Amino acid sequence: MSDFPKFVEFREEGPREGFQIEKTIYPIEQRAELIDLLSEAGLKRIMVGSFVSPKYVPQMADTAELFNRIKRSPGVEYSAMWLNEKGFLNALAAKDAHINPMLLYYTSDAFCRRNNNCTMVEMAARQASWVKLYKQHGYGVETVGITTAFGCNFQGEIALSQVLDVVRELMRLCEENEIPVPTVNIADTMGWANPEAVKRMIDGLRGLLPETQIGMHFHDTRGLGIANLYAALEMGIDLFDSAIGGLGGCPFGGFGNTGAAGNIATEDSVFMCHEIGIETGLDLDKLIVAAARAEEIIGRQLMSRVLHSGGLNRFRTHL
Amino acid sequence: MSDFPKFVEFREEGPREGFQIEKTIYPIEQRAELIDLLSEAGLKRIMVGSFVSPKYVPQMADTAELFNRIKRSPGVEYSAMWLNEKGFLNALAAKDAHINPMLLYYTSDAFCRRNNNCTMVEMAARQASWVKLYKQHGYGVETVGITTAFGCNFQGEIALSQVLDVVRELMRLCEENEIPVPTVNIADTMGWANPEAVKRMIDGLRGLLPETQIGMHFHDTRGLGIANLYAALEMGIDLFDSAIGGLGGCPFGGFGNTGAAGNIATEDSVFMCHEIGIETGLDLDKLIVAAARAEEIIGRQLMSRVLHSGGLNRFRTHL
Repeated sequence: MSDFPKFVEFREEGPREGFQIEKTIYPIEQRAELIDLLSEAGLKRIMVGSFVSPKYVPQMADTAELFNRIKRSPGVEYSAMWLNEKGFLNALAAKDAHINPMLLYYTSDAFCRRNNNCTMVEMAARQASWVKLYKQHGYGVETVGITTAFGCNFQGEIALSQVLDVVRELMRLCEENEIPVPTVNIADTMGWANPEAVKRMIDGLRGLLPETQIGMHFHDTRGLGIANLYAALEMGIDLFDSAIGGLGGCPFGGFGNTGAAGNIATEDSVFMCHEIGIETGLDLDKLIVAAARAEEIIGRQLMSRVLHSGGLNRFRTHL
Repeated sequence: MSDFPKFVEFREEGPREGFQIEKTIYPIEQRAELIDLLSEAGLKRIMVGSFVSPKYVPQMADTAELFNRIKRSPGVEYSAMWLNEKGFLNALAAKDAHINPMLLYYTSDAFCRRNNNCTMVEMAARQASWVKLYKQHGYGVETVGITTAFGCNFQGEIALSQVLDVVRELMRLCEENEIPVPTVNIADTMGWANPEAVKRMIDGLRGLLPETQIGMHFHDTRGLGIANLYAALEMGIDLFDSAIGGLGGCPFGGFGNTGAAGNIATEDSVFMCHEIGIETGLDLDKLIVAAARAEEIIGRQLMSRVLHSGGLNRFRTHL
């Protein structure tokens, strides 16, 4: 009936996406401490920050310094996000940053203009120069992100066929540059996905790219995050972005800090995986410790459930 | 792949379970107003309150008076909960209360002692006298609740076989009394369920009772509520308890008002159903109005997502 993966990887977005959406700029010591707690919990891919415009995103202006402050756990990739060549070069210059060369496609022109200050078509065209830039520095492409893949508050529903058109464009680009198609990371940036749409999306992508790894980036804006995760697990997806405590969300989603939820919470997601018998390599109790610290730092109640209720193993009499 | 029902019914627990868990006793006018808003949103079964000990549950002490205050919408059943004969007689005496004769089984002795002040075996034995009591007043049995069906904080994991043993006991009772087996309402009282356990539970119940309606009562204590709902929908379940705003929870679960989540939120659940094409007969926008009022009354941010982010139809350009 379902085709669960045996092992699922969570890529932690809390330090980046979680703190980027906040109006407050939080002290670098606190963010470094949180990243260290996330390392201790066993996360192997942590997004530390962003090399983006300090004018528009002052919360991330000290990302280079943050790379100096964090402790390194063996086998952990500490990465950052960028949106242009300058950002990539800053990432290259950061201390021991894992370089995760990424492409970025939009499915909504309105969102692209707001988030990237260019049209969707311009942004797609730019991806060829990103591939060349990465090649020039000795890198291939690791991931491609496709944003607002289910719908956009500024543009309405995004049809699956639009996403598949973007993927075809990506495939042409990869062919032209003789590089393999990277991991495709589907982002439900504004919380439009539902479990059935997730399954149709995965089916559609596999029709075009049967061998390519697919990752999912869910926001819990409308409460379906964990159901979407479950639906993707049923389809065998084994790579997810999540944020400790359920931090994060989309700054251009029009909700900001008004109580709307952020990314799916790492600890809730990991809890579900463990409960249904999927391994994650993560220590749930240590994730809860990290989430509790994140809640203290942020200074308001976070939306994660397991953070407040704890896991179940302490109640299991047979353990 | 999935066997979705075409139409799903939500039984509203907010006025009862939602206000019962709060330490504050809220003014009766506010609870009456909330119930009226729930009626306007189209809910057809609303749990108004409980006829239980005013000493232990003072929040529900004015339930009879609440039945006097609420407006009646045509076709809506306004019901209450009881836990003994006295409570049932009070329900009979309440103005225009829909009598929903119920049985109640426990799967955890420890929880039964705390919640019902008797052993699990005593409680099961009592059900025969409940059936007689109902019969004496001209009623059959409409529902049977089975509590902590997936696990209990006081007792650990509850095996599916234990639940099925309870169901066999129920079947014997019904046979002895020559009454049909009522709707079986499976309660995840303390948030132990996961989507796979939900599917196994439904499979197991259908093995014993292929023709009986099964309802599900999920708490979102550990964040899996909406995934559990989705899993149950995949199995064709068409009756759920939920609470506006995500109010509620289990007062003996050991979390109380500490930020742990309550019942699955009516508006989030209805939103998901509508998004995947399942009808509910409910008006999502009016549910959000009711949830916003519930949040004002309670006086703290509720855990529902759609309450804070709204639905999607306003963004759909093709509508």
